[in-house]
Amino acid sequence: MSLSESTVAAFASAGTPTIASQLLKRGFRDQYIHGIAAISEGSKIIGPAWTMRTIPAREDMEGLWPGSSPEPGLSLFAVVESVPQGNVLVIDSHEERRTATGGDILLHRLKAKGAAGIVTDGSLRDVDGIRSTGLPSFCAGATANVSRSHLRVVEQNIPIGCGGTAVYPGDIIVGDADGVLVVPEHCANDVARDSCEQELLEEYLAERIRNGESLEGIYPPSAQVRAEFAEQRGKK
Amino acid sequence: MSLSESTVAAFASAGTPTIASQLLKRGFRDQYIHGIAAISEGSKIIGPAWTMRTIPAREDMEGLWPGSSPEPGLSLFAVVESVPQGNVLVIDSHEERRTATGGDILLHRLKAKGAAGIVTDGSLRDVDGIRSTGLPSFCAGATANVSRSHLRVVEQNIPIGCGGTAVYPGDIIVGDADGVLVVPEHCANDVARDSCEQELLEEYLAERIRNGESLEGIYPPSAQVRAEFAEQRGKK
Amino acid sequence: MSLSESTVAAFASAGTPTIASQLLKRGFRDQYIHGIAAISEGSKIIGPAWTMRTIPAREDMEGLWPGSSPEPGLSLFAVVESVPQGNVLVIDSHEERRTATGGDILLHRLKAKGAAGIVTDGSLRDVDGIRSTGLPSFCAGATANVSRSHLRVVEQNIPIGCGGTAVYPGDIIVGDADGVLVVPEHCANDVARDSCEQELLEEYLAERIRNGESLEGIYPPSAQVRAEFAEQRGKK
Amino acid sequence: MSLSESTVAAFASAGTPTIASQLLKRGFRDQYIHGIAAISEGSKIIGPAWTMRTIPAREDMEGLWPGSSPEPGLSLFAVVESVPQGNVLVIDSHEERRTATGGDILLHRLKAKGAAGIVTDGSLRDVDGIRSTGLPSFCAGATANVSRSHLRVVEQNIPIGCGGTAVYPGDIIVGDADGVLVVPEHCANDVARDSCEQELLEEYLAERIRNGESLEGIYPPSAQVRAEFAEQRGKK
Amino acid sequence: MSLSESTVAAFASAGTPTIASQLLKRGFRDQYIHGIAAISEGSKIIGPAWTMRTIPAREDMEGLWPGSSPEPGLSLFAVVESVPQGNVLVIDSHEERRTATGGDILLHRLKAKGAAGIVTDGSLRDVDGIRSTGLPSFCAGATANVSRSHLRVVEQNIPIGCGGTAVYPGDIIVGDADGVLVVPEHCANDVARDSCEQELLEEYLAERIRNGESLEGIYPPSAQVRAEFAEQRGKK
Amino acid sequence: MSLSESTVAAFASAGTPTIASQLLKRGFRDQYIHGIAAISEGSKIIGPAWTMRTIPAREDMEGLWPGSSPEPGLSLFAVVESVPQGNVLVIDSHEERRTATGGDILLHRLKAKGAAGIVTDGSLRDVDGIRSTGLPSFCAGATANVSRSHLRVVEQNIPIGCGGTAVYPGDIIVGDADGVLVVPEHCANDVARDSCEQELLEEYLAERIRNGESLEGIYPPSAQVRAEFAEQRGKK
Repeated sequence: MSLSESTVAAFASAGTPTIASQLLKRGFRDQYIHGIAAISEGSKIIGPAWTMRTIPAREDMEGLWPGSSPEPGLSLFAVVESVPQGNVLVIDSHEERRTATGGDILLHRLKAKGAAGIVTDGSLRDVDGIRSTGLPSFCAGATANVSRSHLRVVEQNIPIGCGGTAVYPGDIIVGDADGVLVVPEHCANDVARDSCEQELLEEYLAERIRNGESLEGIYPPSAQVRAEFAEQRGKK
Repeated sequence: MSLSESTVAAFASAGTPTIASQLLKRGFRDQYIHGIAAISEGSKIIGPAWTMRTIPAREDMEGLWPGSSPEPGLSLFAVVESVPQGNVLVIDSHEERRTATGGDILLHRLKAKGAAGIVTDGSLRDVDGIRSTGLPSFCAGATANVSRSHLRVVEQNIPIGCGGTAVYPGDIIVGDADGVLVVPEHCANDVARDSCEQELLEEYLAERIRNGESLEGIYPPSAQVRAEFAEQRGKK
Repeated sequence: MSLSESTVAAFASAGTPTIASQLLKRGFRDQYIHGIAAISEGSKIIGPAWTMRTIPAREDMEGLWPGSSPEPGLSLFAVVESVPQGNVLVIDSHEERRTATGGDILLHRLKAKGAAGIVTDGSLRDVDGIRSTGLPSFCAGATANVSRSHLRVVEQNIPIGCGGTAVYPGDIIVGDADGVLVVPEHCANDVARDSCEQELLEEYLAERIRNGESLEGIYPPSAQVRAEFAEQRGKK
Repeated sequence: MSLSESTVAAFASAGTPTIASQLLKRGFRDQYIHGIAAISEGSKIIGPAWTMRTIPAREDMEGLWPGSSPEPGLSLFAVVESVPQGNVLVIDSHEERRTATGGDILLHRLKAKGAAGIVTDGSLRDVDGIRSTGLPSFCAGATANVSRSHLRVVEQNIPIGCGGTAVYPGDIIVGDADGVLVVPEHCANDVARDSCEQELLEEYLAERIRNGESLEGIYPPSAQVRAEFAEQRGKK
Repeated sequence: MSLSESTVAAFASAGTPTIASQLLKRGFRDQYIHGIAAISEGSKIIGPAWTMRTIPAREDMEGLWPGSSPEPGLSLFAVVESVPQGNVLVIDSHEERRTATGGDILLHRLKAKGAAGIVTDGSLRDVDGIRSTGLPSFCAGATANVSRSHLRVVEQNIPIGCGGTAVYPGDIIVGDADGVLVVPEHCANDVARDSCEQELLEEYLAERIRNGESLEGIYPPSAQVRAEFAEQRGKK
Repeated sequence: MSLSESTVAAFASAGTPTIASQLLKRGFRDQYIHGIAAISEGSKIIGPAWTMRTIPAREDMEGLWPGSSPEPGLSLFAVVESVPQGNVLVIDSHEERRTATGGDILLHRLKAKGAAGIVTDGSLRDVDGIRSTGLPSFCAGATANVSRSHLRVVEQNIPIGCGGTAVYPGDIIVGDADGVLVVPEHCANDVARDSCEQELLEEYLAERIRNGESLEGIYPPSAQVRAEFAEQRGKK
C-alpha cells in the first residue's frame, strides 16, 4: 500500500491515543503492540508494514560453535534491502529479548533507503548508533547480544504477530510517545480522517478544561459543546 | 485527612528512601507501590490518597461492539470531579497494562481542581499531553489504548491494592524519582518529622564520606558521629 | 586482576555490541547481564568484577520487627570497604526487585575509594543521589525500600550469577548504553584488542552505508571491502 | 439469582468449551478465569457467584509482629457464613499466590451450608483436607501460608475481577476439567439451553469422526449433516 | 521424513533425558519445548513434525462481533486433514494461553488419520474428550476458550518456534513424562541409536547404585565400569 | 542438626499449613519455598537442610561445544556423596527452569545413603525414574535438559535462597501436598510441638463444623470451645 499524502498528514496530526479511540469505535479493541517504546524521545513513525518473521536459533544453523559458520538462508541483510521506500520494517521476534534483532548499520541502510522506521517486539543493539541514524525505531529494549545468538530470520512479507497484535503486510503502522498501533489497511483512510477531526475537538475541550470548566458536559462533549466547537472552527 | 503544612514541608525535604527507612523502623516492611514510575522526570508528589477501583471490562457493559455503547455507572469522569483539593487519585488497575486508566484531558481537570497528582498500577495515555499538565503522574507505563477497552470503574474512596500495597483513603502518598510510598495515616506526622531529621543527618554523613572518610563509624553513624552532627547542627 | 592500560583503552573505544560479537566468535553466546540498565544516561563502566552474594531476608536475622535489630554478619558496608580500586562491585540479588541493594551514601564511598562502578540485578535507591556521585551504576530499577527489608549479604569475592550470567571474580565488566557484558578474564585482552579493530571497521562500513551503498558486499564486508578498509587505514 | 433446575441440568450436560463457544457467538470473547484449576480431579461446579474482595496485608492491620493481633474488620469467617445455599464463593485475590485465601475448615463449613463451591485467583491451603470436604474448589495453586500474612478481606457481594475476568454477584459460575467460566446472569438461561443442544450435536459429530469420516462437511457441520443429526435425534 | 522402525524402537526405549544428553554431546544445548506437558499421564510421542503457525486474532478477520463471521483462510480443519500418517502436528501459538489451539473433535480426527500426536505451546480444550481420543497431546494447559477468540491459523509446513525452540518440518519430536524434545532430522538416527545404548548403560549403573555402591567410579562411569557393563551385556 | 524423634513425630503429625500458622505466630511471615511441588503425590519430607548453590553455566567451564569437556570443580556427584543421613539436599538454582538440577541416578544414591529428600527451585529430570526411587522430591517442574547445559555447582553447606526464602544449613525442611516450609533451627522443637497440638485442636474443630455448627465461636475457637476440646482430649 502506498499512503496518500492526506492520510499521512492526518495521522501526523493525531496522537496514537486518539487513533486508538477511533479504532475502538469500529470494534477494534487492541491494535496496540505491547511492551515496546521508541529508542529516541520524540520519535514519530507512520507507514505501511513490511513484515519479517524469526524463529529461535539452533546451533548448527547459526554457527554457534567456535569455528563453525551459519547455514545460508534468508538474511536480515536481504530483508533490509527489500523494504520499500516509506515502509516500516516490522519484526516478529517472539518477544525474545535475550538478543537484538538488528543494529545500527542495518538501520543506517534502512534510513538511506527511505524506510519510515523499524518496529520489533524484541531488542535492538547499539543504542547510540541507532539514535544517530535518525530512523524512528521502536523495540522492547536494548541489548549487546548479536541477532543470530538466539534468532534466525525465515520469512518476509507475510502476516505476523508482534507484541501480541496481528500485523498484515500493508497495515498502517503509527507510533509516537504512547507506543505503536496497527491500523488495518482497509480502514486506514477513514481512521486517519476521523482521528484528525477528534484531535481538533479534544484540543478545544482541553483548552476549556484548562480554563476551569468541569468535565460535566465538556468531556465527553455534549451536543451543545460539539456545536460550539463547530461554530468556533467555522470561524477559523 | 488534610495534611499540616509542617508535615508537607517535612515530606518535601526527605527522599522516599529515607521515608522507607523510617517506615521500616516502625515495622512496615514494604509500603512501596511496585512497578511504577513518574511520567515526567523530577516529579514529586505529596498528598492524601483518594482511591478508585476498577475491574476487567465486559463487552456488554462497555459497549465494545460496533454500534453499542457502555452501560451507565460510576465513570472515571465522576471520580475525577470528586477528588478533593490536595489529594492524590490512586487507582487499583489490577496491574492491567494493556489499557490506559486515564489520559491528558482528565489530568488537565485534576490539575485545575488542585489535585496533588495521580497514581495507578496500570498505564496512562497521551504522555506528551500529560507532561504538559504539570500534574505529578506515576504509572506502570504508557499505552494508546482507551480505558474501557479493558477496565471498568466500580468504586471510589474505599481501601484498595495498588502495585502490591494496600492503600486506605487518607493514607499519605509520597513519590519522587525512587517511586511511590504509602504512609499509613496514623503515623504520617511522626514519619515525616523523623524523615526530615534523618535526611539532614544523611546529608552530613554523605559530605564526610565524599571527603574521604571510610564507612566505619560514619555509616551507620556511631554515637560520636551523631554527637558531632548535633553539635554542627546547633551552630547553624 | 588489574587491567592493562591498553586493554582499558581498547574496551573504551568499542561498544558492547561489538564486544558481544567478539565473544560470540569465540563461542560465548550470552555473556550479557539481562534486565539492567544505567541509572545515568551516558554511563560507561570498565573494570574487573568484585562480587557479592545475597539471600532472602528473614525476620529474626534482619530485625524486621519493631524494636528488634539485625544479627551481625557480613555487611554491605564491609563489602564496600573491600572493593579494590578500579574494580566493579557486582551483586547477585536473585533478581529481587522489591528492595534496593544499596543507596547513595555507599556509592559515594565506592566513588571516593576509586571503584569503577556498581552492577546489581536488583534495584538501587536514591536515584538523584546516585547520579550526583558520578559513579557508573547499573541496576534493574529504582526503589525506595531498604536493603535488609528483603535481602541479606552473605559472601563476597566468589562466583555468582547476575542477571542470568555467571560472574567470576576478576572477569572484566564492560557496560554502556546497550547494557553490561561479562568478559571472561582469560580472553579479556584478546577480546578487547579485536573489538577495537572491529569497531574501526564498522565505523568505516557505516560511513559507506550512510553514503548510499547497499548492504551487499559491504555488510558483512567482502574481502575486497576489507582490503579497501586496510588501505584507507594505512593512509591515516 | 437462583438457578432453575433446567438451567442447572443444561449446564451439567455441557462442557465449559461448549459454553465458551456459545458465549463467543454472543460476542463474549473471554469469560474465562485464567490461571486456575480444580484441586480435585473430576470437580464440576455450577452456581451463582457470591463475591469477596481482598487487598494486600499491612503489618499493623493484620498483627504480623510477634505479640500483635489483627484489627477487627470483615473476616473470611463472616463471609463464609454469608454465602447463600447453592452459591459459589468467588474471591478476588489480586492473583496473589504467596498466601492462601482459605483452608479446609472454612471449606468444611461452606460444604455444610450447601454452597456450590469456591473459586479464587489466589491459592488455597490444606490440599488433603480440601479434597476430603468434597466441595468443588478451583484455585491458582496450593500453599501452606496463612491468609492474613499477605491479604486482608474488605468487601463482599460487589463486582470484582478474578483471573482477569469480571465477576458480578449473581453471574453463573461453571467449572470443570477445562477451568472456570463466568456466564453473565442475563443470558445464562439461553446459554445453558444452547450449550446443551450444541453438546448433543458435537457428540454426534465426534462419533462420525471416530468412525473415519473426514472433517470436511462434518466439522463444522454442513446443513446436510445438521439435518441428519436432527433426524437421528428425532428417532430417539 | 519417514522414520525407520529401528529408529522408532530406539527412541521408544530411551527417555527424553537420555536423548537430551546425546543432543548435548553434539553441541545442541536446548532442544526442549519449554512450558508444556502431556494432557494424559503416561503419554509417549514419537514422530516427524508437521508444523503450523498462528498469529493473534483480529476482530474483522475472526468474526468476533455478534452477527459477524470469520474471513475465509487456512483453517485448523484443513491443517488437520493435511497431517501425514505417523506425523506430529506441532503448533506455534506464540505461547498464547488465553485460548485453546484445538479441541477434542479435531484430535479424534488426527487419531483416526493415524497421526502420532499433537504439540502446542498454547492451550488445548476439552481435556476429558482429549483423554478419550488416546492421542498423545502435549500443551501448556487447558482452557475453555475457542481458538479464534485469540488466534488465527496462517501457514503450515514451515519452520516455526514452539516453546522457545526451533522446529523444522521433518524434525523428530519425542515426548514423555519429562516433556518434549526436537531432534534435528539429520542426526535423528544417530541420536536414537546412541540414546538406546546410553539407556541400557544407565539402567545397569542405576542398579549398582541401588545396591549401595557410591557414585564415585560408577556415575559417571569409569573405563572399568564401562568394561564390566560391556561384559555383562555380552552375556545376555 | 540431628532431629529428635519426638520433633520428627510432631512434624509428621502436622500439615505444613498448621506449621505455617505457628511460624506466623512467632512473626515469620513467609518461610514457604515458592513455586515448587512434589514429583510424587503423597510425598512427605522432614529433615535438616544440606544446601548447595549453583550459578549459570558458561561454555568454556561446562564443555558446551562439541568435543570440549567441563572444567573440574565441585560436582553434583560430590555433593550427593556429602549429604548426611536424614538430611534434605536443598538446591539454589536461581529458579532456572530451563534445565534439570539432577536426575534419577543421583536420587537413587541419595535414597541409598538415607537422605530424607531433595528440594530445588529449579527442575528435575527423569520423572518416572525419580518416582521409582521413593525419595521425597520437590521441584519447580520436570525437564529433559542436562544440568550443565545451564547451571554449574559452586558451593555446599552455606546459606542460600531457594524459591524466594532463605535456607541456612540445619534449618528444618518440612514438605507435603501443600509445599515446603523452612523452619529456623532455633525454634524447630517449639514449632513442632505447638503444631502437633494445633493439629489436634483443628481436627476437633473440623469435626464439629462438619456436624453442622457455624463458624462463630468454633473457628477461631472461643475459650469455651477450647475448654471443651481440652476436656474431650483428657478423656482419651
